[in-house]
Amino acid sequence: MGVVLNLEGGKREQASIAELIALTSADLGRVNELILSKAGSDVEMIPEVANHLISSGGKRLRPMVTLAAAQMFGYAGDGHVKLATSVEFMHTATLLHDDVVDESDMRRGRKTARMIWGNQASVLVGDFLLGQAFRMMVEVGSLDALDILSTAASIIAEGEVMQLAAAKNLETTEDEHFAVIKAKTAALFSAAAEVGPVIAGASRNDRAALRSYGMNLGLAFQLIDDALDYGGSSKDLGKNVGDDFREGKVTLPVILAYRRGTQAERKFWKAAIEDNRTDDESLEKAIGLMARHGAISDTIGRAGHFGGIARDALAPLDETPQKAALLDVIDFCISRVV
Amino acid sequence: MGVVLNLEGGKREQASIAELIALTSADLGRVNELILSKAGSDVEMIPEVANHLISSGGKRLRPMVTLAAAQMFGYAGDGHVKLATSVEFMHTATLLHDDVVDESDMRRGRKTARMIWGNQASVLVGDFLLGQAFRMMVEVGSLDALDILSTAASIIAEGEVMQLAAAKNLETTEDEHFAVIKAKTAALFSAAAEVGPVIAGASRNDRAALRSYGMNLGLAFQLIDDALDYGGSSKDLGKNVGDDFREGKVTLPVILAYRRGTQAERKFWKAAIEDNRTDDESLEKAIGLMARHGAISDTIGRAGHFGGIARDALAPLDETPQKAALLDVIDFCISRVV
Repeated sequence: MGVVLNLEGGKREQASIAELIALTSADLGRVNELILSKAGSDVEMIPEVANHLISSGGKRLRPMVTLAAAQMFGYAGDGHVKLATSVEFMHTATLLHDDVVDESDMRRGRKTARMIWGNQASVLVGDFLLGQAFRMMVEVGSLDALDILSTAASIIAEGEVMQLAAAKNLETTEDEHFAVIKAKTAALFSAAAEVGPVIAGASRNDRAALRSYGMNLGLAFQLIDDALDYGGSSKDLGKNVGDDFREGKVTLPVILAYRRGTQAERKFWKAAIEDNRTDDESLEKAIGLMARHGAISDTIGRAGHFGGIARDALAPLDETPQKAALLDVIDFCISRVV
Repeated sequence: MGVVLNLEGGKREQASIAELIALTSADLGRVNELILSKAGSDVEMIPEVANHLISSGGKRLRPMVTLAAAQMFGYAGDGHVKLATSVEFMHTATLLHDDVVDESDMRRGRKTARMIWGNQASVLVGDFLLGQAFRMMVEVGSLDALDILSTAASIIAEGEVMQLAAAKNLETTEDEHFAVIKAKTAALFSAAAEVGPVIAGASRNDRAALRSYGMNLGLAFQLIDDALDYGGSSKDLGKNVGDDFREGKVTLPVILAYRRGTQAERKFWKAAIEDNRTDDESLEKAIGLMARHGAISDTIGRAGHFGGIARDALAPLDETPQKAALLDVIDFCISRVV
């Protein structure tokens, strides 16, 4: 796609999460230990299924956000490690259930758990991880953090149902679509970021700043993910270009191309999304139509809009290495399309 | 089946939960209101799916146990109503996911949600209800109650995976089977009972008494349920005799009949359970073999054993109407087979 979003008013090095990784590396080691221990069970199938996904090379972006957000406000205990692990478990549970709901075969370049162990195991191990996530939150003992994360759990599920109900509906408006991705993706980023200041006992304003940062980062992240599906390379993504297209998902690039399209083009989209005409030739045509209507570049533009809000959310906070690292995450997410 | 278990050393009226219903009726009215409100969502599909199951005539046994257990220790707030609703939501979420895992068509005499709205909706609405359950627990604000219920959530899922891993294994021992039903069924009864004294600020001993009562009641309940599948009538049960058989479930009646059977009988069981030979003739033969080996009456006997432990768990507590009502529940569960 090659669209470079210039967020800083000047040319910039390729954004990276190296700083975030460096700052959270010790804590993240403890998160990884806790993941292994809390995904453990005498029931063999549980760690097998859980670790298949957990060890499949996810970036651990959400738990790193929690860790950095807690460090940022001088948190000294070990509650942030438990909350970060809870966040990763919630995320993993969602992925396990998502793959069942979407009937996906591949995730992060590997067979999905449901293809190996079946839908049943994916549903139940997801439930187990969610239970374990709540147990860890309870151990931390912050009712505020529990409130934030349990509310996120409800909202995520609500977003997934919303998406299911709107499935294959090409008339979905951009606003309706934002409501879906806000719930299904951004709510967890928002909760992951907010629980940091919460257990650090930071102020109401600091909480609100991190909440807003997480929410807008999550929106940007999802939009870029949706753009990548029509333009990334399989190697980078762990998924193939066109996966969303073949599953008939109505993501923002599709919504924009459909709304801006001619009558004939809309017929094409209906055949593709509603009637599953999603062969390689159709995919190529879809990408062509998106290019014609600026659907990908505008999706990236929308992501930039939310990225900017995330950036301003953190603006009033003291300059700390953690703040700089969290700002880098915004650019990293958006620069994935470059 | 006609086996009457005489738990009181004398002839007894048909046991009933009338007393429990009477004592909890005002609170249960509030539970029902809360169920409606917390299963609500702007996403239409959520209340539709949730209410299909919630309003399908379940007895609300678990929430009534929570309410009575809280009343028993003089609890005065409204936390027990929220916890009882949480318990019912956890139960409903489990049923929604169970039906997906078991590929069940019918539940309580109605089509399962997955048959009407699909597996996807059942998985996601289950997740939503679980999230809502945790939010209500957080509102109550008791970390002890949160600990008990979140631990139960993990254990239930673990029990379901255990059951999945042992599916169709006729060599399952009785102990292994007890471990499964303890986790998948009894753990929630136990948690439902224990959170009552917990929010009432009762003593450690009182908590332990109610926990033990719930656990053993749950075991008895599940065993009777399994016996009923080979002998109840479709009208009473909301499920048909032989449902478990047709799904190839290895319940205690099957385990006992298999272990006590001749070589030829074991071949029959393997054909039935492992190779799905579960036509009506086979079902009739299965029931005959169970009768020959006392598999049903001994399953009921085991239920009586656990019922006795539940009874003794409450013995040291003051005589209150709630205690009497909870004792009635034991007899009610067991007398369902009469």
